[in-house]
Amino acid sequence: MSMFGLKEMEVAELVRAISVPGLDREAIEERFARATWTGLAEPGDRVAGALVAALGAPRALAAVVEKRAPADLVGEVGADLGAADLGAADLEQGIARWQPRVSSSNALLALRQAARFGAALRIPGDEAWPTGFDVFDTQGPLALWTRGTESALLALSRSIALVGARAATGYGEHVTMEASAGLVDRGYAIVSGAAYGIDGMAHRAALASHGETIAFLAGGVDRFYPSGHDALLTRIVEFGCVVSELPCGSPPTRWRFLQRNRLIAAASLATVVLEAGWRSGSLNTAGHAAGFGRPLGAVPGPVTSAASAGCHRLLREFTALCVTNADEMAELAPLASGGPPIAEAGSPPAGPGRDSPSQVRVMDALSARSARAATDIAARSGMSVAEVQSVLGGLELEGVVREGERGWLKPAPKKPSATQR
Amino acid sequence: MSMFGLKEMEVAELVRAISVPGLDREAIEERFARATWTGLAEPGDRVAGALVAALGAPRALAAVVEKRAPADLVGEVGADLGAADLGAADLEQGIARWQPRVSSSNALLALRQAARFGAALRIPGDEAWPTGFDVFDTQGPLALWTRGTESALLALSRSIALVGARAATGYGEHVTMEASAGLVDRGYAIVSGAAYGIDGMAHRAALASHGETIAFLAGGVDRFYPSGHDALLTRIVEFGCVVSELPCGSPPTRWRFLQRNRLIAAASLATVVLEAGWRSGSLNTAGHAAGFGRPLGAVPGPVTSAASAGCHRLLREFTALCVTNADEMAELAPLASGGPPIAEAGSPPAGPGRDSPSQVRVMDALSARSARAATDIAARSGMSVAEVQSVLGGLELEGVVREGERGWLKPAPKKPSATQR
Repeated sequence: MSMFGLKEMEVAELVRAISVPGLDREAIEERFARATWTGLAEPGDRVAGALVAALGAPRALAAVVEKRAPADLVGEVGADLGAADLGAADLEQGIARWQPRVSSSNALLALRQAARFGAALRIPGDEAWPTGFDVFDTQGPLALWTRGTESALLALSRSIALVGARAATGYGEHVTMEASAGLVDRGYAIVSGAAYGIDGMAHRAALASHGETIAFLAGGVDRFYPSGHDALLTRIVEFGCVVSELPCGSPPTRWRFLQRNRLIAAASLATVVLEAGWRSGSLNTAGHAAGFGRPLGAVPGPVTSAASAGCHRLLREFTALCVTNADEMAELAPLASGGPPIAEAGSPPAGPGRDSPSQVRVMDALSARSARAATDIAARSGMSVAEVQSVLGGLELEGVVREGERGWLKPAPKKPSATQR
Repeated sequence: MSMFGLKEMEVAELVRAISVPGLDREAIEERFARATWTGLAEPGDRVAGALVAALGAPRALAAVVEKRAPADLVGEVGADLGAADLGAADLEQGIARWQPRVSSSNALLALRQAARFGAALRIPGDEAWPTGFDVFDTQGPLALWTRGTESALLALSRSIALVGARAATGYGEHVTMEASAGLVDRGYAIVSGAAYGIDGMAHRAALASHGETIAFLAGGVDRFYPSGHDALLTRIVEFGCVVSELPCGSPPTRWRFLQRNRLIAAASLATVVLEAGWRSGSLNTAGHAAGFGRPLGAVPGPVTSAASAGCHRLLREFTALCVTNADEMAELAPLASGGPPIAEAGSPPAGPGRDSPSQVRVMDALSARSARAATDIAARSGMSVAEVQSVLGGLELEGVVREGERGWLKPAPKKPSATQR
């Protein structure tokens, strides 16, 4: 086992502590290797992904630890790299950038810290591995570190991501609260990034509705970011799940925020941006969702509000759909039968002008006060007497008009017409 | 001349009064016939349009006045009707619905009233006939009654329609004011329907900016509707133009409002809905614009505002583009060169994350306070030392980072990063 000469027993015990029970030696080796890889390669490292795919995580790790010559490695995995559009130079550069991080003490520290915080290690093939990560080729995470319930992790398969600006307004937070609670009511889990503003409100409202919520972090799951969301993240660990592809001890960086956004977009069925400034980071999440072919929604707001400018930008420049409530967000990614019904908002209202043109014109020509003869109605409506009589007959059957002694009458208006401009 | 036995001299004098100068007898006959037709057929009557196209307005009028047998007429115009997908039955029904309105006194009254109010009669072929009406086949107006300046009418060729709900909010009126004034500044004329709320504000702001504005009415131009807009419409007559396809004396009806909407959509280069309830009549105008293949814009608003629900519906269910300011509205229908410049809003902002991934990661690994060696930066960024040195070199050339005695430093942040979530 390639463990940099670490004590094999301690490593095995640690890996067991942070994994599913009943692991054999090979499985422990696989998990240790993937755990270590999350500390060697930055998120989204395609060369690491391709090398691990080609050799398996343990042998790929051994190659780096044992400083195998790149030229020698290329002979072994060149074809696999080629399939991922990578070449020998990429491999050489990869090894050069992983090398400075090879450290047995760091690897051990991450495992110990994970065990201390009750974090779990998830790898591809685990039942709780997000099904949405199928979109990844070589840029997917090599492993995930999670803290929280297994059921929340499984709920990613019916989740919608609600993301947005940290500098949210009262409007944005209100809409997010309604959306999150409404989607939970419809059977969805809520994914977000635990940031201040929209993200925090999305998680909070989901928890308040006793729903499942999953927070993807840009740093290790042992350190909550932002620190002002310590209490919120602690509750998410209790009732939902906190997820990161970086090992414990890793600080969040701008790069990791951008890469974390791709996980949010990939893990959920659809992504909705609720409020975002013109250059908000949530537009990056939206871009990933669109790139993965996942449905993307944007909530409009006042055009006078800078906090909605990014949402309007998504509506104008990207493929985002305008969504205004939980029903419309659910329509982005309808749950298969078995889930709760989605469309509960009553029958869709009929469009304007559903009456036939001749009905409109006859009604125009009728008065509620003075009875009118069919010939008079014909001249007023610009219709033939025969047609007027036919339309009047139909309207009478529907109980809309009535014929008095002196002619035809329509009912008195109850309120000013709302459709006439 | 088929004038129901009216005094030919009086009719000729009246027609001359409401028309361009220098009309010969044939032209007067044509104008009288079209003027009379606007009182016989309701707006959008395809059979009237086809019959007038086939026979010319005077002979078509004579056929109705003289009660020619439909069967006899079909022999003459059957092929023309067929080309418009109309048959003998349509013609028979047409004659039956025009017949109740044949009245020499009404025809004379409309002319006298027009002359009294200084209204002008416009017919296809006139210089001021709206070029946008080319979209009509047989459903176009047979003539227009106008009150106002010729230049405003000509300005329809560079007009945008701003329409919306009567029950507008302060938000909607504010956005409309900005949009109307902004479009006038960019060389556009403003078309609307003179209703309360959005329409009224669109006209008012255009007038305030000394722009040209055109109001399409659903009744005759001698009677202003709504009456509360008497003063506004009087000012539009003075500085812009009021237009209707119905003769003087005609009351507005629901049918005529719906048909008036098609003229608004056809006359302008693009239609923008600024605020509209779920069933607002302005959605009907929007539907016409989309049907004509004209660009359609909708201004979003708070999803909590019922007054914006129709706009969001247009964004969701129709082909409407999200527009948030005059610049974006102008982009719907850019004016040909010669018009004022449209894009004055500064260069488009770059999207999030325009820095290269390696630059982002090196910057992440740098500190503003403690200088770091390239090897340290390599381990922190997950990059090779060689690549880090190359990126640092580039950033140093751009003046972004600097190398001190103890290593590399980045500048102190001026404010919290706006892109990091």
